[in-house]
Amino acid sequence: MWSVDPRDGERREQVTVEATAADVDAAVRAAHATRQALADRGTRVALLRAAADALEADGERIIATADAETALGVPRLTGELARTTGQLRAFADEVADGGYLDVIIDHADTSLAPPRPDLRRYKIPLGVAAVYGASNFPLAFSTPGGDTASALAAGCPVVVKAHPDHPATSELTGAALRRAAASVGLAEDVVAVVHGFEAGIELIRHPLVAAAGFTGSIRGGRALFDAAASRPTPIPFYGELGSLNPVVVTEAAARERAAEIGGGLAGSMTLGAGQFCTKPGLVLVPAGDGGDTLVDALAKKVGEAAPGVLLDSRMREAFLAGARARAELPGVETPVTAGEGEANTVAAGFLTVAAEQLAAEGVHDLLLEECFGPVTVVVRYADTEQVTAVLSRLPGNLTATLHLSQEEGDGDGGQGARLVAALTPLAGRVLVNGWPTGVAVTHAQHHGGPYPATTSTSTSVGTTAIERWLRPVVYQDTPNALLPEELRDDNPLGLPRRVDGRREG
Amino acid sequence: MWSVDPRDGERREQVTVEATAADVDAAVRAAHATRQALADRGTRVALLRAAADALEADGERIIATADAETALGVPRLTGELARTTGQLRAFADEVADGGYLDVIIDHADTSLAPPRPDLRRYKIPLGVAAVYGASNFPLAFSTPGGDTASALAAGCPVVVKAHPDHPATSELTGAALRRAAASVGLAEDVVAVVHGFEAGIELIRHPLVAAAGFTGSIRGGRALFDAAASRPTPIPFYGELGSLNPVVVTEAAARERAAEIGGGLAGSMTLGAGQFCTKPGLVLVPAGDGGDTLVDALAKKVGEAAPGVLLDSRMREAFLAGARARAELPGVETPVTAGEGEANTVAAGFLTVAAEQLAAEGVHDLLLEECFGPVTVVVRYADTEQVTAVLSRLPGNLTATLHLSQEEGDGDGGQGARLVAALTPLAGRVLVNGWPTGVAVTHAQHHGGPYPATTSTSTSVGTTAIERWLRPVVYQDTPNALLPEELRDDNPLGLPRRVDGRREG
Repeated sequence: MWSVDPRDGERREQVTVEATAADVDAAVRAAHATRQALADRGTRVALLRAAADALEADGERIIATADAETALGVPRLTGELARTTGQLRAFADEVADGGYLDVIIDHADTSLAPPRPDLRRYKIPLGVAAVYGASNFPLAFSTPGGDTASALAAGCPVVVKAHPDHPATSELTGAALRRAAASVGLAEDVVAVVHGFEAGIELIRHPLVAAAGFTGSIRGGRALFDAAASRPTPIPFYGELGSLNPVVVTEAAARERAAEIGGGLAGSMTLGAGQFCTKPGLVLVPAGDGGDTLVDALAKKVGEAAPGVLLDSRMREAFLAGARARAELPGVETPVTAGEGEANTVAAGFLTVAAEQLAAEGVHDLLLEECFGPVTVVVRYADTEQVTAVLSRLPGNLTATLHLSQEEGDGDGGQGARLVAALTPLAGRVLVNGWPTGVAVTHAQHHGGPYPATTSTSTSVGTTAIERWLRPVVYQDTPNALLPEELRDDNPLGLPRRVDGRREG
Repeated sequence: MWSVDPRDGERREQVTVEATAADVDAAVRAAHATRQALADRGTRVALLRAAADALEADGERIIATADAETALGVPRLTGELARTTGQLRAFADEVADGGYLDVIIDHADTSLAPPRPDLRRYKIPLGVAAVYGASNFPLAFSTPGGDTASALAAGCPVVVKAHPDHPATSELTGAALRRAAASVGLAEDVVAVVHGFEAGIELIRHPLVAAAGFTGSIRGGRALFDAAASRPTPIPFYGELGSLNPVVVTEAAARERAAEIGGGLAGSMTLGAGQFCTKPGLVLVPAGDGGDTLVDALAKKVGEAAPGVLLDSRMREAFLAGARARAELPGVETPVTAGEGEANTVAAGFLTVAAEQLAAEGVHDLLLEECFGPVTVVVRYADTEQVTAVLSRLPGNLTATLHLSQEEGDGDGGQGARLVAALTPLAGRVLVNGWPTGVAVTHAQHHGGPYPATTSTSTSVGTTAIERWLRPVVYQDTPNALLPEELRDDNPLGLPRRVDGRREG
């Protein structure tokens, strides 16, 4: 595996080699052997905090390496490292809190017919987790990212299949995680990193792999999903595959703050050279003056945007071809044309099309597919029926955004509420008067949505992401002395729980 | 579809005909159209309670019809109807409680870098649920059973694919559910019943079906799981497919209460003619005197058990062939031989085999497969290594049971705790000194386990079964007036929730 600088496409360094089937098997078996040691919650809290510390300690080198492999820039990667370490610490807090164990206790009731036994449920880790790193967040959604952090938090050892766009970053961050494990007395093998396309296939098929997390393309993600589902023993595959992230701007909103919305959209769609899963890719803008002003503001800002370097040459070619194919569709205009820039960069752009073109199946359906990179599609609509018609044709999304006027936001007239209700079935996150790029790591966050946004109903961001790596087990009529501490009547660990229907803690 | 009495194999009545693809499409579309009306929690509480009332009102006829189609007997079916109505009311209480919505609110924090937006998450219904009725519980795991109750509780309309063994019972109970819907002002189409093998395939492939629940065989369940996973838009398939339900009796337990354990096992394995998903199918009994006494007690009780009628002729043939094939394996003995009884009945029996035979792959692996009906396999072991070796060869299970002595239960010596830990990875429910048949419907219950016990990490019994039919959605920076009531700051519905990390209610 070579480190390639996307700024010039040159191979800089041979980092490592592709893992063989035997390498993958050895990594999974070694990870599997650490499960017992990982079972202790206190140790995992320490591991997650030590991992954050280790990444910070090596931060300068990690950021420089990631920048050389991704061209995302030092400021962005500095922020991303902070997000990554913050995420690890948030999961440490969540493990310490223990609410994720979902302890439920029902005491025996012999007065019932049939008598009810004593039942005590909590959640246990699934086993070795396979994590497929994403290209566009070499830290926060890659080797030390949310999938790894949440799986470790749950008590699952992790084998990462590194993204080929940043092998050196993967090795460096993987080494930091392994050092952190050693520093808290765990085997380093609680985390392993393997490289290579074939290794990724071996990993999803390995009998000791119990679940997988993935962020990437629909094509790659679906292939792995299919492989996970067709195993002799199928395993859960938590894939985040792709999203158009529709935005609806109401006529009143466009009238009220066209320039602000146009400028905001330009910022969101060009952020990180448009390489965000949550890039707004389809924007419904009213016909007429307000909408025209919005499009003008968008054109001005997008035209001023600095050209960006995409993550690799394959993505660059796909972006250029995708933008060109969309621009060539009948009736599509390009106020600012996305295309080749100087010195391996690409220039941001956007397309406009009338809503009628998208109302029924046809060649314009290409505009309903995600185009990764700094381009978006502005759909001009004449009335709310056209908005409804276009929305009804969308696949599942991570996000759906609404721009409302002050009055609509206040709930007068019901238009805002109607639109919130119309967007809810389309996505896992619904935003009002904001932009979908930037996904806060919090308790309430949900980063997932109807297929193909994700292949499951779970989230890959936020603390509930831990739920993916657990399964419940219930103990029936088990003597107190034999119960896990988490389930004992006196609640020695002070866990939040539900006892005979009542919530405690 | 004909009603057939398994007591004589005669066709009694033509109940209905197989649904065509057009029938299935119409049922799904009609169900889909009721989603909005079902969205109201209060209406759903009323629906679930009215459904319980309607089933009770027609109870005598339902029980008689189910008995004629299943031969399970009036006492058992009377209990099962009570379980079914209790289950519907338990879900009504759960909907009223609202904790299942999993409300999480994080307020905005602009002091952070980057600033954190306001995020409010809860869960919404997935859409139309397909429910595949089971043969062995014509009420509690069929048309009006746990899958239907939990899906309706979640707000999902249901299309049931009726089990061909009890079409008349399915029609009667389906009609009761539809009357209940009408009685609370809902369209009857919130529940529909379709019949026929092809209809089941059409259903799992229908674009408007959003999730499916199934209880049945590994073969049928896996075929539907594969169909669900290979759709253009894959959907969750919650299948409960099969389970061996291992039991380990320690040497000390066998010494202490051999007769009690032998008798208890006989009762559990012959209950409902052995047609329970949780029938103990593999029982590890120590070699030596205690174990011998246990086997003698088992033989006496099984020999005395009344012959039973199996659910249909196909199951009867499979049971007889399965019992015979197992009995013919080298080294296998049959203290009581399972086989044909008089007048379409089968006689219960059990096999014994030495643990060595199961330590490695071979012809005896047949003993590690579920044999549906009143037969079990007693494995005689010489030492704990043999117990470990046999356990390591088992597929996933719904339950795993441990019989311990008084001293082992008190935790002295650690043997009990070691065995609890060894059984936990094998199953979703671990029992001590009890029997796995009988699955209480409570908050803590978990009826699921590693594949093939279930195809997911979820449960099909107990109130957390509702989680299967929901997905989270989060609202970002959404004005209070536009938020669902469930997510408003003043908590007008009094829901339990987590706000800025703190649990309330």
